[in-house]
Amino acid sequence: MADGARPAYLAETQEASYLQLHAEEIAAAARRIAPHVRRTPLLTTDLDPRLRLKPECFQVTGSFKVRGAFNAVLQLKERTPPPRGVIAVSSGNHAQALALAARTASLTALILIPEDANPAKVAATRSLGAEVLQDGITFENREQRLREVMAERGLTLVHPFDDWDIIHGQATAAREVLEDDPEVAAILAPTGGGGLLSGTALAAKIHRRDTLVIGVEPERADDAQRSFRSGAIQTLPSSPQTLADGVRTTAIGRRNFEVMVERRLVDDIVTVSEEEIERALVTAWLKLKLALEPTAALPLAAYLAGKAPPAEASPVGLILSGGNFDQAVVARLLGSA
Amino acid sequence: MADGARPAYLAETQEASYLQLHAEEIAAAARRIAPHVRRTPLLTTDLDPRLRLKPECFQVTGSFKVRGAFNAVLQLKERTPPPRGVIAVSSGNHAQALALAARTASLTALILIPEDANPAKVAATRSLGAEVLQDGITFENREQRLREVMAERGLTLVHPFDDWDIIHGQATAAREVLEDDPEVAAILAPTGGGGLLSGTALAAKIHRRDTLVIGVEPERADDAQRSFRSGAIQTLPSSPQTLADGVRTTAIGRRNFEVMVERRLVDDIVTVSEEEIERALVTAWLKLKLALEPTAALPLAAYLAGKAPPAEASPVGLILSGGNFDQAVVARLLGSA
Repeated sequence: MADGARPAYLAETQEASYLQLHAEEIAAAARRIAPHVRRTPLLTTDLDPRLRLKPECFQVTGSFKVRGAFNAVLQLKERTPPPRGVIAVSSGNHAQALALAARTASLTALILIPEDANPAKVAATRSLGAEVLQDGITFENREQRLREVMAERGLTLVHPFDDWDIIHGQATAAREVLEDDPEVAAILAPTGGGGLLSGTALAAKIHRRDTLVIGVEPERADDAQRSFRSGAIQTLPSSPQTLADGVRTTAIGRRNFEVMVERRLVDDIVTVSEEEIERALVTAWLKLKLALEPTAALPLAAYLAGKAPPAEASPVGLILSGGNFDQAVVARLLGSA
Repeated sequence: MADGARPAYLAETQEASYLQLHAEEIAAAARRIAPHVRRTPLLTTDLDPRLRLKPECFQVTGSFKVRGAFNAVLQLKERTPPPRGVIAVSSGNHAQALALAARTASLTALILIPEDANPAKVAATRSLGAEVLQDGITFENREQRLREVMAERGLTLVHPFDDWDIIHGQATAAREVLEDDPEVAAILAPTGGGGLLSGTALAAKIHRRDTLVIGVEPERADDAQRSFRSGAIQTLPSSPQTLADGVRTTAIGRRNFEVMVERRLVDDIVTVSEEEIERALVTAWLKLKLALEPTAALPLAAYLAGKAPPAEASPVGLILSGGNFDQAVVARLLGSA
């Protein structure tokens, strides 16, 4: 890493000021989004007394994504002149979050969703007032189409993870965990593009430098782990086939990489098998009584498999990212378990 | 009703002192059980801004029943001499709650469970340290067998609902709802034997005399509604066949009747169809993101069907009683919806 050659005292000073800058932004994000998002509770559970659960399934729109979306959109709205509208590519939780944030800020939102996406998610995005463009959009051409449509219509991109305002918004979830239980010694969060994980890392290290932060991703989508280990962003050849449909991005973002790897604010990234995800999801429903989506079960999967955190770290906070599951998946897993 | 002929001022005075006595008992129950039960949060939801959800699925053992069980058992333990042990008939949430409370108080617990009960619930009760007796126990002979075994072994009965300590313990759930949101104008709770509903009624009327309290039961188990309307305890000919397996009792208890009907502290009791229960359960999973059991969906079913409360009452508290569902039932409902 680039700063490996610097004297330790200098690296530390720099880290302190780096964290201080982000701390101010995260505190501002928390104030900014408070009227629009829900302060989800921190739950304990009979399953394991070490666990502290942050159920973002109860968040507005059913996922943590509104935290970042509101933080980004409310700031865009204050620009002079304000943007014509916002645009994003997403078939998932970011689409609904951005649609709601834009509607709240009286901005138009255009969401590009690949043609083969789940019709229920398309309908949910439209019902929040966004325009949805699907014609000719595929997973492969979506980034290119995005640039074209942005230019045509003069819309402002709200990236789902590689954006500091998004990262600072997502950080408020872990910040609340640590407000509610300052003793939490380790936090586990899912990682796809790294927006939630890099925000979690900033919030945790601001709270206490030795709070462990561990990212969890599917084995089939191990680009974040490989990026973490190699010190360079690694990209998957194609969108991974995993039950955890919230983390199908092919690479983490540049800003997320800075926080997670270059600044070493994430302590480890572990992977879980599809079977471990399925088992954790069933455990979440049966034992935690939380109707989670598969992606939200990633931290529980790593915990139950004994992959993270070390046994001495307690209590352990799990960021359970959302509850927008496909009901056919629940029916299949509960029916066969 | 007996006090109908009394002057209004006298009836009111009596009600005030009646509520005052119960208020002290409920406050004492809250203090007594606090180290052993969980303070569940009060949730808001995107589904409807009027709703305030009390998710007792997150309660210790997965249902509100530990509130009453701990309040009863901890007081029994203080008797001189303490009881030899406790006994109950139950195949459901009371069994697990009593088993845990007894183990915590270092008392033995014997639970009579009919032979055809769900093996998972039997195992859960045993795993909490209770002795389970199933040999020759049927739904029909269970009360008689209970009396016989009580006498043989010198054990003390902890009735699941017709017991003031149980009622005062269950009352703490509604008390917390009103602590967390004192503006709640109506509370809906499931009713079987009436332990939760009579406790809810006491807590609500202590808080403010005009807080509406509405019980919800399946159409197929409408004895509480008929008792409420007729002014006399009505008994079902046999245990009703309803998806809401937590309310299969055939009649409300004498003490519950006193609170609910004689003292007029419940404002109404409404019934819901099996289809309405099924729809509400699916809505709880999909929209509330709560993995509820069917009985816990009763208040939501009444609310969604527009049966209670009146439109002007807002906010509306729903006591969602537990999350110990049969996974085959949920798999079927989510698979076919």
